[in-house]
Amino acid sequence: MIVDCAHYREGVRQHEGALDVGQAAEHARSGDGFVWVGLLHPTDEELRQVADAFDLPELAVEDAGREHQRPKLEAYDGSFFLVLKTSRYDQEEERVHFGEIDLFLGSGYAVSARHGEASPLTGARKRLQEEHQHLMKAGVAAVGWAILDQVVDDYEPVVAGIEDDIEEVEQEIFGGGLDSTQRIYFLKREVIEFHRAISPLLVPLALLERGAYPQIPEELRPFFRDVADHARRVDAQAMSQRELLTSILEANLALVSVHQNEVVQAISAWAAIIAVPTFLASIWGMNFVHMPELKLVFGYPFALTGMLVSPLLLHRFFKRIGWL
Amino acid sequence: MIVDCAHYREGVRQHEGALDVGQAAEHARSGDGFVWVGLLHPTDEELRQVADAFDLPELAVEDAGREHQRPKLEAYDGSFFLVLKTSRYDQEEERVHFGEIDLFLGSGYAVSARHGEASPLTGARKRLQEEHQHLMKAGVAAVGWAILDQVVDDYEPVVAGIEDDIEEVEQEIFGGGLDSTQRIYFLKREVIEFHRAISPLLVPLALLERGAYPQIPEELRPFFRDVADHARRVDAQAMSQRELLTSILEANLALVSVHQNEVVQAISAWAAIIAVPTFLASIWGMNFVHMPELKLVFGYPFALTGMLVSPLLLHRFFKRIGWL
Amino acid sequence: MIVDCAHYREGVRQHEGALDVGQAAEHARSGDGFVWVGLLHPTDEELRQVADAFDLPELAVEDAGREHQRPKLEAYDGSFFLVLKTSRYDQEEERVHFGEIDLFLGSGYAVSARHGEASPLTGARKRLQEEHQHLMKAGVAAVGWAILDQVVDDYEPVVAGIEDDIEEVEQEIFGGGLDSTQRIYFLKREVIEFHRAISPLLVPLALLERGAYPQIPEELRPFFRDVADHARRVDAQAMSQRELLTSILEANLALVSVHQNEVVQAISAWAAIIAVPTFLASIWGMNFVHMPELKLVFGYPFALTGMLVSPLLLHRFFKRIGWL
Amino acid sequence: MIVDCAHYREGVRQHEGALDVGQAAEHARSGDGFVWVGLLHPTDEELRQVADAFDLPELAVEDAGREHQRPKLEAYDGSFFLVLKTSRYDQEEERVHFGEIDLFLGSGYAVSARHGEASPLTGARKRLQEEHQHLMKAGVAAVGWAILDQVVDDYEPVVAGIEDDIEEVEQEIFGGGLDSTQRIYFLKREVIEFHRAISPLLVPLALLERGAYPQIPEELRPFFRDVADHARRVDAQAMSQRELLTSILEANLALVSVHQNEVVQAISAWAAIIAVPTFLASIWGMNFVHMPELKLVFGYPFALTGMLVSPLLLHRFFKRIGWL
Amino acid sequence: MIVDCAHYREGVRQHEGALDVGQAAEHARSGDGFVWVGLLHPTDEELRQVADAFDLPELAVEDAGREHQRPKLEAYDGSFFLVLKTSRYDQEEERVHFGEIDLFLGSGYAVSARHGEASPLTGARKRLQEEHQHLMKAGVAAVGWAILDQVVDDYEPVVAGIEDDIEEVEQEIFGGGLDSTQRIYFLKREVIEFHRAISPLLVPLALLERGAYPQIPEELRPFFRDVADHARRVDAQAMSQRELLTSILEANLALVSVHQNEVVQAISAWAAIIAVPTFLASIWGMNFVHMPELKLVFGYPFALTGMLVSPLLLHRFFKRIGWL
Repeated sequence: MIVDCAHYREGVRQHEGALDVGQAAEHARSGDGFVWVGLLHPTDEELRQVADAFDLPELAVEDAGREHQRPKLEAYDGSFFLVLKTSRYDQEEERVHFGEIDLFLGSGYAVSARHGEASPLTGARKRLQEEHQHLMKAGVAAVGWAILDQVVDDYEPVVAGIEDDIEEVEQEIFGGGLDSTQRIYFLKREVIEFHRAISPLLVPLALLERGAYPQIPEELRPFFRDVADHARRVDAQAMSQRELLTSILEANLALVSVHQNEVVQAISAWAAIIAVPTFLASIWGMNFVHMPELKLVFGYPFALTGMLVSPLLLHRFFKRIGWL
Repeated sequence: MIVDCAHYREGVRQHEGALDVGQAAEHARSGDGFVWVGLLHPTDEELRQVADAFDLPELAVEDAGREHQRPKLEAYDGSFFLVLKTSRYDQEEERVHFGEIDLFLGSGYAVSARHGEASPLTGARKRLQEEHQHLMKAGVAAVGWAILDQVVDDYEPVVAGIEDDIEEVEQEIFGGGLDSTQRIYFLKREVIEFHRAISPLLVPLALLERGAYPQIPEELRPFFRDVADHARRVDAQAMSQRELLTSILEANLALVSVHQNEVVQAISAWAAIIAVPTFLASIWGMNFVHMPELKLVFGYPFALTGMLVSPLLLHRFFKRIGWL
Repeated sequence: MIVDCAHYREGVRQHEGALDVGQAAEHARSGDGFVWVGLLHPTDEELRQVADAFDLPELAVEDAGREHQRPKLEAYDGSFFLVLKTSRYDQEEERVHFGEIDLFLGSGYAVSARHGEASPLTGARKRLQEEHQHLMKAGVAAVGWAILDQVVDDYEPVVAGIEDDIEEVEQEIFGGGLDSTQRIYFLKREVIEFHRAISPLLVPLALLERGAYPQIPEELRPFFRDVADHARRVDAQAMSQRELLTSILEANLALVSVHQNEVVQAISAWAAIIAVPTFLASIWGMNFVHMPELKLVFGYPFALTGMLVSPLLLHRFFKRIGWL
Repeated sequence: MIVDCAHYREGVRQHEGALDVGQAAEHARSGDGFVWVGLLHPTDEELRQVADAFDLPELAVEDAGREHQRPKLEAYDGSFFLVLKTSRYDQEEERVHFGEIDLFLGSGYAVSARHGEASPLTGARKRLQEEHQHLMKAGVAAVGWAILDQVVDDYEPVVAGIEDDIEEVEQEIFGGGLDSTQRIYFLKREVIEFHRAISPLLVPLALLERGAYPQIPEELRPFFRDVADHARRVDAQAMSQRELLTSILEANLALVSVHQNEVVQAISAWAAIIAVPTFLASIWGMNFVHMPELKLVFGYPFALTGMLVSPLLLHRFFKRIGWL
Repeated sequence: MIVDCAHYREGVRQHEGALDVGQAAEHARSGDGFVWVGLLHPTDEELRQVADAFDLPELAVEDAGREHQRPKLEAYDGSFFLVLKTSRYDQEEERVHFGEIDLFLGSGYAVSARHGEASPLTGARKRLQEEHQHLMKAGVAAVGWAILDQVVDDYEPVVAGIEDDIEEVEQEIFGGGLDSTQRIYFLKREVIEFHRAISPLLVPLALLERGAYPQIPEELRPFFRDVADHARRVDAQAMSQRELLTSILEANLALVSVHQNEVVQAISAWAAIIAVPTFLASIWGMNFVHMPELKLVFGYPFALTGMLVSPLLLHRFFKRIGWL
């Protein structure tokens, strides 16, 4: 689906509604400002149509057709192809959902295609139109920055969500609520996948920041540096989280063992508590002829008392040494 | 065995059947298009014959004679020698089978040799002949690309198969089906071997992509970049899987301990359940003369009732605290 | 809040009280010495005012407005932006508190902004004014050095505090005081976070040391090298601590298991000690007609003696084999 | 001991027996072909004699005098000093034995010295004399290649031997034969030491391969590349083995825990099996007056039957839930 | 304390006793040979005096005043400042003691300062004066080499001592002597600290070896290479030891679990051994009227025999299955 298709001149949108792809391509070729075509879950046909109109690089278009790409930045002569992983943290499920944005940047055009759970780009478009008109004057690279900026900004709540979950898990395991193993494991899985989504982006971002691509106007470089810096921060945090979760998994194992110890101690204490009166009963169950206490009127009550008191004493003893 | 031996001119196969090696070598020398010789489990003699005909580099031919090479790309002056590890995932056995393809690329000739469980190259040849004639015009390097492309494409189902198994294992261990240790271990072993098959390829692919070899025509570079990108993606996924499996092994250990705890608790609960009525019986087994309840007509039934009720109460208690 | 705002000429403060920002900016522009503006928890408005006065780089000012930046050094043309993480070890809570100092260094001005628990910079300012006037003559970079020096100096007590805690934990776990798991884990968490605060600083410091920025006067380079060296030392120590804590966590796990063993042995010993007399009692509780000892006058006392002696012997035995 | 000392001209040995060192040195100086002196466990004196004759670099000679060097390649002006670790796998002891070969290569001479369990070099010498005369024509560097080639070839059976042992250990631990901990540990120790013997060689080999030393004739470079490739393969395999053994150690730990679980379950099942009839007996051991079953003629046989049947039922039950 | 202060010309000491610092500084300035001042635990005052006399770099002198520096090599223009960690292994305590040597090398002077448990340098001085006069002719850098050489030589017995301890620990844990956890942990701690003392030295040593400092005369470079090689060997060994100790810690954990298993099995066997005769006794303790065996004259002896034989049979059985 084509979501929007607009022509910008000197940073200002030239019309209200969406252009059709042919018109847009013409504007792009004319060198008069640039056009931005936004696609959502594009069919192969739509993709083909746009690719033909703008003469997009063949292999890149093929990549854009499939999902589950690795994030990358590819420079073709005169144009760029960017694959970005978007992410959204679902607090309910404690899961990170990933989407994908493919972006073609060429002389006079930007074509973006969203797949999966990618956050809508209308925000980025709006912000660019309203807040950063001066950037748009620098040309189509500003679209690249705006999208990168939004995607990376959207990583923030993901790491924050994972951070919260880690703190919850810490409370769980150190608060005695056992068996968070599964939760820890799946959190770690999330972090590993998340890292896989960000980290391949760091090198291309550093290249953009250092000005490795002459097509990117000089005045945009600080903005790319800002995004790169942000991405590095998020990635560093994810790395720390991975390390933390490894430590939690180990701590958890120790705690499970400690807890097992406590269970064994408690069980043993109770076993002792019942073993003693049983033993007493077995004494008075013996058949010796000469057992004078058996004949006493109060023998039985005394025996029962002994059988009651001994476990109570034991109970207090085990309480004191901390086994109960 | 020589599977096929064909002469291509301007990207078009010049004949139906297979040429013999001598003719092929002549075509290669004549500089008129190129020939592609395909060998399958070649005997030393066949290898020697082809090597002599095309004057292949000595040491490379020796390498091609043995299996279990490490993937590599070697540049001799004017020619290349490539060793590729192929892989196939056997869902039944949950095992990755590895094969090997050796490829000689020289001026005017391509000689490929398959060993072990390597996927047949007829697909690559066909696709090249039918879909990518324009590439074949660029010369013999197109054959290199086609084979690399197929080999790397075939890695995809392997990582996918392992991914599935990992998910199964996750369900197994978190679903309470214990002792997946062996399965986890062998999955990890597979991933380690698989990584060993891919990773040495990444650097040569990056060199091809960056145009380090002037013999590779410029127009093929995006195609090599495509393969390189694909290989990196597969390798990154394998790395994640390795890390995941390490975490699963640790999680598994914690779960085994947790399960052990549960077993000990259940056992102890049952021990308590039987200890109490036994204790009661031992009381009334005592030989005190003055035990009035012994003489009651309903003494015995009452005692039995007590012996029945106390375990039931205990059972309910242990249910409530989650030990049963 | 603007804490101080002073004008220095030839390394000497030109006045007692604080200037206002406008005056300061004028001094900065005049190229006559430099000014140092110190902000504490600046409001967005204050930041804006200072940014406008000194024409600070836009994106850097945005960064300075939010907390939780990653330490970094950014060079804008003609000016620098530094983000530093400060740290303080709270012995009571065994926690590292982090703060942040943002620093703008430009031609003729230094603007520092403290956030969170950052240590006050009055010490750095004083030391510079009194001890290092010769450095201040070298210009505004001296302020950069003074702040870096103080921040890195303040890392020292943090690693020292953690070192102490590690030694305490070692004594705890090897002294038999079990279950230090939580403490070890949180110490490790601290070290990971602390490392995250220092390590991004190492590369910029190395650049400063190697003279990568021509704006930094040559005579200050040994001072930056001194700071860099100090930071590397602290970071190396933190890395060792991280590794140590990993080992402690593992050692702890082994000790928990060893302790569990001891508990099981002790419990079993006690079980045996009570099982033997119980067994003896059950013998004499049998109803055989011909059990001559039952009729002996001293049968019962003898039996009781046996029931007393056998556990004592067992107790001594278990003591000897170290189970009790 | 001087094992052999020969003069080669145009790749052909010039005489049958061994020359004496003085003659050899003269040949070396004359620039007419080269000499190869082979030493075995040389005494300090022998070493000194040879060093003086060929004017070997002082510090290298000192190194050659002691064992336990780290593999290295040192270039002195005009000459090379190589230290190689040789290895042999002793299947009986499951141990890797290490030896050492020191090699001096200079203009016109090669001096090799074997220490410890180094494999004899007669094979390398023979192969060079018979199969690779063309290489020897390239000069003394061919001797360097021949020795490197043999040493690295001899690594192959070592990794193969360790591979076999790893497979045995896998069968051991997953086949239920417990406590392979010690074997796993010592295998890992072997692999670590083995890696230490190979890995320092990889960089010098890569330098040789890339032609960093102009003294090495161009035509030998593919041969050094062959050796380097081989060494990398062996090293990569050793690295995989190290990782595998780490995983095995972890898997082993999980299996020990699983096994412990099974033991506890079996024990508990048996405890229950005996507890029930004991309880039954204690019921009928009570002294209630009105226990009609006690007076039945078949009471006792019935009771015995009950005491027999209940454990059988329990046994079947525990079999079914897999505890026995 | 000033230990020695000597003037060397053409590698020969010019006088017997120690010069005073002023004289020495004059010699240094005159460019006639060089002086070597040796300090031991210098007071701040002594350091100041020497620093003033030789005009040592300010920041380096500050560093030399405090202990616990990180090893480093700093080049000031015309002079060097070296910090070295010395180490000594105390076999009794199984501890590595660290000391520090600071060395100033400038045109015409060498100033060394020992702190803590640093090995005395008289050996290095003597060896230089007696064995390496030719090196001393090369100037003051020879002093640098001599000290480095001795410090690195002294690392050898440390790794050897740790190696011995590792072997002892291996015997301990695999010989059944449990709970070496503490010892393993502290060995690992030592190795980590030791690595921290050596590793920062490797890069400066490699720089010296590669001739990065033109002040170092060419003829000394092989000697620095020798030291660098030695340091790398020691460091590689320490790294292996660290890895080994990690494996030992893991193996230890598995062994503790295995041992626990054995204890549980033994305990259970004994529990069964006593449970059977107790059960038998409870049978004959029942009050059935018709229990003919109770009336037999040999009933009781038979019962006792059964109660004796059954545990013996069980004992043999448990022996056979390896539980006892």
